[in-house]
Amino acid sequence: MKIAIAGAGAMGSRFGYMLSQSGQDVILIDQWKEHVKAVQENGLHINLDGEKRVVELPMYLPSELVDKNLEVDLIILFTKAMQLDSMLQAIQSVIHENTKVLCLLNGIGHEDIVEKYVAKENILLGNTMWTAGMEGPGRIKLFGQGSVDLQNIHPDGQKGAEEVVAVLNEAGLNAMYSENVLYSIYKKACVNGTLNGLCTLLDVNIAGFGNTTHADTIIRTIVNEFISVAAQEGVELEAEVAIAQIQATFDPEGIGLHYPSMYQDLMINHRLTEIDYINGAIVKKGQKYGIATPYCAFLTQLIHCKEEILNVK
Amino acid sequence: MKIAIAGAGAMGSRFGYMLSQSGQDVILIDQWKEHVKAVQENGLHINLDGEKRVVELPMYLPSELVDKNLEVDLIILFTKAMQLDSMLQAIQSVIHENTKVLCLLNGIGHEDIVEKYVAKENILLGNTMWTAGMEGPGRIKLFGQGSVDLQNIHPDGQKGAEEVVAVLNEAGLNAMYSENVLYSIYKKACVNGTLNGLCTLLDVNIAGFGNTTHADTIIRTIVNEFISVAAQEGVELEAEVAIAQIQATFDPEGIGLHYPSMYQDLMINHRLTEIDYINGAIVKKGQKYGIATPYCAFLTQLIHCKEEILNVK
Repeated sequence: MKIAIAGAGAMGSRFGYMLSQSGQDVILIDQWKEHVKAVQENGLHINLDGEKRVVELPMYLPSELVDKNLEVDLIILFTKAMQLDSMLQAIQSVIHENTKVLCLLNGIGHEDIVEKYVAKENILLGNTMWTAGMEGPGRIKLFGQGSVDLQNIHPDGQKGAEEVVAVLNEAGLNAMYSENVLYSIYKKACVNGTLNGLCTLLDVNIAGFGNTTHADTIIRTIVNEFISVAAQEGVELEAEVAIAQIQATFDPEGIGLHYPSMYQDLMINHRLTEIDYINGAIVKKGQKYGIATPYCAFLTQLIHCKEEILNVK
Repeated sequence: MKIAIAGAGAMGSRFGYMLSQSGQDVILIDQWKEHVKAVQENGLHINLDGEKRVVELPMYLPSELVDKNLEVDLIILFTKAMQLDSMLQAIQSVIHENTKVLCLLNGIGHEDIVEKYVAKENILLGNTMWTAGMEGPGRIKLFGQGSVDLQNIHPDGQKGAEEVVAVLNEAGLNAMYSENVLYSIYKKACVNGTLNGLCTLLDVNIAGFGNTTHADTIIRTIVNEFISVAAQEGVELEAEVAIAQIQATFDPEGIGLHYPSMYQDLMINHRLTEIDYINGAIVKKGQKYGIATPYCAFLTQLIHCKEEILNVK
């Protein structure tokens, strides 16, 4: 199967590497010039649980695809949320009428963007628990185990989804076909929709926020906004289930002493955040369904204020 | 007239000094031990537009009043909002059935507390534009001009209010009887209810917040919550009037480059904030009137989180 990884940072490169090792015909696509150049010139350097290896994988900037006449059977999307639209715009030449597109980005509502470029029957949404890190241009660090669950967004897409599950499993990616992938997407989004924005705004780690008197009220209010929107999309997520998953993160023996990825993005690396695709997505869907989402709206606005105050563009 | 200033920090001491100079019989009351001791031992040291003077004024801790058999005709309240209840509790011995009480604290809803100790006919609410600063225990700094407007909260209190206006004017305090003091209290609260909490949370000065893209939306949403509550109390405040007053503060040639008092309290001096008496008061009144105030509620909760994260008690 010809597979393009669109957005081949750490996670995308992991998937590309594992799929390639299992015999698939993989290309990597990314917008980070230094990274693409490094892989093109020196291969992809992988630190796999401490063991070093180098693999040759074709990698392109989106602009390099235009006159390549490449068409692929599967695209796996791993861009940052705000780069999804421009990536799809730029790689239209590799999409043919039967190309499946599997979206594994964090956040909610990405299908609205993917649908501009791909027929619904070919769109798959998924959620992954694999991890990976960048060590520099062309260099990734892989450790631990993970899984993927995915589902077609249109009934006619189920056969294609099951084929993709099989291909991912041949590569050892622990994929599962899900009858309700939106459930796990919304459940994960509840964690990101509370801890990410709030720890960033309050300049505190997960346990530090979780231990405040008002954390519980704030979390319940935000989770209820997520759940009300999810219900409109046929997802029945119970507040207590989502809240228990959030509370589990407060443990200082676990990830409690860590700062969420949004904190790292904005406060440490001075990069724009994905807030529009987490809380902001709930606001947008809330407007569509006539559901009030004031906490998500205010939090989204405050994070955007902080981006501007820190002069992040 | 026998007058007690309850809460005699910088502003209270200014009022006490000016009233005393005009011939009134003034006592100062405060809970800050070092300050009371300094005034008792060395007098009140005043830096008045650069000119130094020292005046003798009787000053007491609330606990020193119990066996004094002092009764006063007027109490002017200038405590921090969170100390109002305990102050009134502690000074009950100086309140008799005709004692007027003028409340000049920032914020909203203080009358609910004062009513626990004083008949409505004797309660006056006011708003002042005077300023003053502390230079240390027993030492205050006075500069500039100001004014006071005040009103009785019960129709039977008007005569008493007019008497108090006359006494303040004899002392040069530029007092005016107001037909609608709640209007100016709510208008000022709109400024404090936006800039104070938001600049504190976002760690930014007034202009820095005002210049962000989302400042306008956030301010309008919060102001509308204040206005909706004010309308239930018979105060017709137009959004554009309140917003114009807030926008005027963004000017870097004016106070734009300053940080609001709440920022100073929490971020610099690590003191508890008055958020419960600004945005929190709107939430409380909103609950009473069945008006949704989610932005005020979330902002109040976030500031309390920040207090706890900074371990301020």
